[in-house]
Amino acid sequence: MSKPSIEVCFTPSKFDLYYDNQEIVVVIDVLRATSAICTAFDYGVSKIIPVSTVEEARAYQEKGFLAGAERDGQIVEGFEFGNSPFSYMKGNVKGETIVLTTTNGTKAINIAKVAPQVLVGALLNLDALIAYLIKQNKSVLCLCSGWKEKFNLEDTLCAGAIAKELVEKAGFAFSEDSTIGAVSIFEAASLNNFRFLKASSHRRRLRNLNLNKDVIYCLQPNQSVAIPYLNGDALELLAY
Amino acid sequence: MSKPSIEVCFTPSKFDLYYDNQEIVVVIDVLRATSAICTAFDYGVSKIIPVSTVEEARAYQEKGFLAGAERDGQIVEGFEFGNSPFSYMKGNVKGETIVLTTTNGTKAINIAKVAPQVLVGALLNLDALIAYLIKQNKSVLCLCSGWKEKFNLEDTLCAGAIAKELVEKAGFAFSEDSTIGAVSIFEAASLNNFRFLKASSHRRRLRNLNLNKDVIYCLQPNQSVAIPYLNGDALELLAY
Repeated sequence: MSKPSIEVCFTPSKFDLYYDNQEIVVVIDVLRATSAICTAFDYGVSKIIPVSTVEEARAYQEKGFLAGAERDGQIVEGFEFGNSPFSYMKGNVKGETIVLTTTNGTKAINIAKVAPQVLVGALLNLDALIAYLIKQNKSVLCLCSGWKEKFNLEDTLCAGAIAKELVEKAGFAFSEDSTIGAVSIFEAASLNNFRFLKASSHRRRLRNLNLNKDVIYCLQPNQSVAIPYLNGDALELLAY
Repeated sequence: MSKPSIEVCFTPSKFDLYYDNQEIVVVIDVLRATSAICTAFDYGVSKIIPVSTVEEARAYQEKGFLAGAERDGQIVEGFEFGNSPFSYMKGNVKGETIVLTTTNGTKAINIAKVAPQVLVGALLNLDALIAYLIKQNKSVLCLCSGWKEKFNLEDTLCAGAIAKELVEKAGFAFSEDSTIGAVSIFEAASLNNFRFLKASSHRRRLRNLNLNKDVIYCLQPNQSVAIPYLNGDALELLAY
């Protein structure tokens, strides 16, 4: 039996070019949506409903939901949560359902909905995710959220880390140049993520917003074993 | 005075996101359009008119122009030239004007037309181009042609080679993650382009079409000192 494939797509707008009926899509937005989502589940959130627009988030909020909205790195006025992982660590989310919209990540999750299974990936849950994907032995597309449709380094190196392990440890196949590129970038970065990313445009943007603490947290691999997955319109914690 | 910038855009459809009024756009399609164009000028062609569609090329042909058309790696029926460099080495192009359309490269050239100066880049003319760009000391965007709007390795590593030299030798600035990614990929590849590219999807496609000889030729750096540039609607040889 032939091995399943692992491929990488750098930005949401290219999803249709790279989506080839893979059984699993892993959505990655390291800085910071998917990192925050993993953290929220670590702190006991029950469900997260990803929506694409601030208006949708506000409509849910008016119905009484807890809601988060981030645009351009900052919490939108009138919302409780943004996409800082720390905003979910205050003991205020246990058992709750949260509606969330972010600049890049939640849009990517909604684009990925055509796939049979959509998972949330970050550096925070890297090893747990890789182990799960190897066990499933199904075709995987890593969808990087990017930054406003531009390529970004941190999502690409997370995707490259996943691809490298699936290829080298479990013999997954690949054919896209983007997958080879992501693995090369991961290998270049793996000596020191933080140093590598210091020139990165998104990291600079967050530093300017005094969010350096978030960046340091989100770039730490394997702080979480949470694998959030999309169940209908809501993210829930995968029991694996 | 602040240094000019060098940035890299991976595919033509992202051009508007990365074009920030750079003074020079370098269009790159290593396999094979821009390599063939450099070679055509080496063999004495006078002008090359890049057009986006086969229909446009045919209309010129009906007016008596020499014309080339390539789609999916093969010469379109009824045309004299494709984008094999070897098709321009037969002593048949000296002093001629050739109309050319290719799957990716000529479209990228036409997209880049908004810039004050559009240059043609390839591995074949790498050092000549780098020396020229450093001498100009103007802002540069490298536009990779990609493959049908997908990222490709060979264009990215050519762009990465240019960016690395402009940054390290001439202190050019950069801010896009795509530029850092391209330099990383070039550094990963520079030990051995050919080995690096052996898994590349486009290279595999060309091998399947028995065009291995073209690939070997196009991946050789510095076989040419031609720098083709866009003068109105036609590419001509830059006198530098």
